[in-house]
Amino acid sequence: MDNKNKEMKEKATLIVHSGDMDKIYSALIIGNGALSMGMEATLFFTFWGLERLKKSGLNKGGLSKMNMMGLGKAMIQSKMTKQHVATLERMMSDFRQLGGRVLACEMTMSIMGVTKKDLRTELIDDYVGVGFYISEARESKITLFI
Amino acid sequence: MDNKNKEMKEKATLIVHSGDMDKIYSALIIGNGALSMGMEATLFFTFWGLERLKKSGLNKGGLSKMNMMGLGKAMIQSKMTKQHVATLERMMSDFRQLGGRVLACEMTMSIMGVTKKDLRTELIDDYVGVGFYISEARESKITLFI
Amino acid sequence: MDNKNKEMKEKATLIVHSGDMDKIYSALIIGNGALSMGMEATLFFTFWGLERLKKSGLNKGGLSKMNMMGLGKAMIQSKMTKQHVATLERMMSDFRQLGGRVLACEMTMSIMGVTKKDLRTELIDDYVGVGFYISEARESKITLFI
Repeated sequence: MDNKNKEMKEKATLIVHSGDMDKIYSALIIGNGALSMGMEATLFFTFWGLERLKKSGLNKGGLSKMNMMGLGKAMIQSKMTKQHVATLERMMSDFRQLGGRVLACEMTMSIMGVTKKDLRTELIDDYVGVGFYISEARESKITLFI
Repeated sequence: MDNKNKEMKEKATLIVHSGDMDKIYSALIIGNGALSMGMEATLFFTFWGLERLKKSGLNKGGLSKMNMMGLGKAMIQSKMTKQHVATLERMMSDFRQLGGRVLACEMTMSIMGVTKKDLRTELIDDYVGVGFYISEARESKITLFI
Repeated sequence: MDNKNKEMKEKATLIVHSGDMDKIYSALIIGNGALSMGMEATLFFTFWGLERLKKSGLNKGGLSKMNMMGLGKAMIQSKMTKQHVATLERMMSDFRQLGGRVLACEMTMSIMGVTKKDLRTELIDDYVGVGFYISEARESKITLFI
């Protein structure tokens, strides 16, 4: 752990509570934006967000607002492809390659009965509790609940 | 008011706009986590969140995402009980005993036609406006909108 | 651009991801509160939030929680009128007159196929990407995702 360097970087710490596709996009767009601006970024997946870290689950979320202006999930994904917006898988891969941290909430795992073998452990840096989140968030420049 | 001591503690200030059960859990878990890490924590209940401070209302919220993976509200509560996760009532009681502050949004009360006799006033430290929220949030290390 | 003065003011930077009427209210109430307390305030409209900046769209959002306690959108608006709560249009007008900044997310425009002629450009100060958001948020005292 490169602690000395980490202490010096400004931090963005996001709770990903929602599992909605559009909110996972927002979390990863903000996370990748923070990393590319030289910040440290941590995504803390809880509740419905954690469902997205299940095997094959990243793209399984619905939209937080259905049928609005006629834009369903399929249509939005088609528009994204045409506009060369990266897929969630690609954004997650970029996030991790740029040094972003993905944390899974241990309490959610207990409540939901989720075990490590249900999860894509290759995407997850650590399994932590709320105390870890607080200690990161209190020294972060950007804190969001998504 | 123990202002000198308060000034020295780092603060977490959360707006609780949603009344969904899972989001009330998140707010109290984060609030209690912050308190147990030596921070000051304030929950500012607005809109649907304020409905949860009505008499017998704390546990009345639905889930922000229904029927996902077959996990309805009853099933989640059953899982929580099995995992010895504290109830919302217990978490709220802990929050207040640990020194957390619960604030009710006066504007929401006006809009929704809610009066103090509709609310569990024994849980509420003060009835305030947005100005109070801003003055707390601007000096907080953690600010979230839930 | 009055940069010297801007650097000295404390900042509140809010992402408006939701297009729900009650959340747009919250964003503008917090934004106007921050401005009236002497802070700089920026609202960054993305995803469903951006839909509200379309022509005649500000008041078109539904509620994030329908039919709760029998309070539908029409009833809430009626209560607001009786309580002399300002309309969204008035709050947005106040926000801009007090010096608040409204930013539109360029990536959302691409994804949703929204062009400037679909938007109320007279309300929008600039069209920016996530990098601009990060650079504002990292130096803000209050960061929220709504």
